[in-house]
Amino acid sequence: MLELSAIEDAARRIAPFVRRTPLMQATALREPVTEADLWLKLECLQPTGSFKVRGATNRLLTTPPEALANGIVTASGGNHGLATARAAFQAGVPGIIFVPKTVTPDKLERLRGWGADVRVVGNVWDDANREAQAYAAANDAVFFHPFADPAVMAGQGTVALEILADMLDVETLLVAIGGGGLISGMASAIRALKPSVRIIGIEPVGSPTLLASRQAGHVVRLPAVTTRVATMACGRTDEAVFAIVDEAVDDIVLVDDEEMLSAAKWLWSEMGLAADLSGAAAIAGIRSGKIALKPGEKVCALVCGAGKDALV
Amino acid sequence: MLELSAIEDAARRIAPFVRRTPLMQATALREPVTEADLWLKLECLQPTGSFKVRGATNRLLTTPPEALANGIVTASGGNHGLATARAAFQAGVPGIIFVPKTVTPDKLERLRGWGADVRVVGNVWDDANREAQAYAAANDAVFFHPFADPAVMAGQGTVALEILADMLDVETLLVAIGGGGLISGMASAIRALKPSVRIIGIEPVGSPTLLASRQAGHVVRLPAVTTRVATMACGRTDEAVFAIVDEAVDDIVLVDDEEMLSAAKWLWSEMGLAADLSGAAAIAGIRSGKIALKPGEKVCALVCGAGKDALV
Repeated sequence: MLELSAIEDAARRIAPFVRRTPLMQATALREPVTEADLWLKLECLQPTGSFKVRGATNRLLTTPPEALANGIVTASGGNHGLATARAAFQAGVPGIIFVPKTVTPDKLERLRGWGADVRVVGNVWDDANREAQAYAAANDAVFFHPFADPAVMAGQGTVALEILADMLDVETLLVAIGGGGLISGMASAIRALKPSVRIIGIEPVGSPTLLASRQAGHVVRLPAVTTRVATMACGRTDEAVFAIVDEAVDDIVLVDDEEMLSAAKWLWSEMGLAADLSGAAAIAGIRSGKIALKPGEKVCALVCGAGKDALV
Repeated sequence: MLELSAIEDAARRIAPFVRRTPLMQATALREPVTEADLWLKLECLQPTGSFKVRGATNRLLTTPPEALANGIVTASGGNHGLATARAAFQAGVPGIIFVPKTVTPDKLERLRGWGADVRVVGNVWDDANREAQAYAAANDAVFFHPFADPAVMAGQGTVALEILADMLDVETLLVAIGGGGLISGMASAIRALKPSVRIIGIEPVGSPTLLASRQAGHVVRLPAVTTRVATMACGRTDEAVFAIVDEAVDDIVLVDDEEMLSAAKWLWSEMGLAADLSGAAAIAGIRSGKIALKPGEKVCALVCGAGKDALV
């Protein structure tokens, strides 16, 4: 587990550069998705459109400025890439972002909007990551890993501090999983502050990285990653991330890409929210009936990223 | 002015059917629009995508059920039509919605999604309104006026109660104007509860209905309505609305359609919000420099409607 103090320090550090996003009750729905009392944490309203700005900002602010001179490199399905591109922009150094071919045109355009040097490599994140790591080593540039980095995980964990402050009676937390950085950071905070909260992770059917590792009892590499949701595609997680998830996450459910698209359309028509598919994963988990919730149960679902996926 | 009690009664009445929308500080921006302390009231996250659901719901709940039997009729640039279509859906009676040709395809699709009988008539709201009134009279159906109705105005005014509760130190309020129902309802509440608040209305250059009336000293009919923003197009306001706006609104500024589109793009790229053009009008007023704000001034801008306008 991450130390709570690392997450609390991150919250103080990043506060001037990120937003305290709203927590909103999902009431007055035409098509209710649950009899539970559902609240949405709107991380899609962060700068760059996702929670990733928390981790990347914490990484930036804990890196010595002299280490940044040759630029900041990462590999990302989009959201962490955007957050890293913003970090490089803020630091005034080159941002070199490796993305897989599954990246959405919207996110590609936004990356370029931050002045990033964008390189489209491979079909899945793991391919882009290999190239990005090699580039960073060859060019003595700093690498901002999207999840296997305590500073990044601690930054993502700050979402949990806000939820606990705004929703004192939260019972269940629903969090999408890509590599696992978000859920491991959040779970570390939750287990330290309110261990009774049930934590459920949501992975794509086509990229069940943490579930497969948990079932094997150790980190495994998936034989194939078939989801088209680039922000959740990850063939292999990290040992430290796995250890936290294995210990602290109560359950992991799988949703398919169509369920996420349908949930994103629901978020748009019901709530006026433009979520990307990972941002809709928690709602997909509820709507598909794969997450059992009791009537009146106090549930917080993270809408973790913005996107046009359901709108065009 | 509306009685404060009418607005407070409306708030209690509609509470189960609308959302308490978040108020969010617009921090950590790449392109700040002001040195003021800017907060956004996210009415774009209401059911049907705008504040209009407040007024239409209050109208529905104050109408005797027997009066609804032949259906509910309105004329609307889109948002009030959606709110009225929902009211008819909830009441289980036909909803007949007259819209001008400028309605966006998105809103047309949503109207049909509520089961409304949609009739596209004329180039501006006033044309659609004439037909709608005639239809209602001929068919003994109830007409939900988008602004010239105390129940509708009181419903819209409930937004102000939430802002005053959530932002105790608000100094300036920015509100888009179509026919004037929203700003007159809100101004009535503000003048009763915190008269020091500066209230600024924003109209399109191509539909300056309230500004022209105020300059003339009486309600005038505009010679032409040229904005393509259907949700703000109105050739003539109502006497009661005008009286309140003339007394209680400090200033009205005009923004053009391009400024609103640009502001909607800003809301998307900076905040992850999918606002329609009227929803971006307040931001357009700031960005264009037409609204003077002091550094640190506590400003609340209404993001009054959702839409894909800036995203496609």
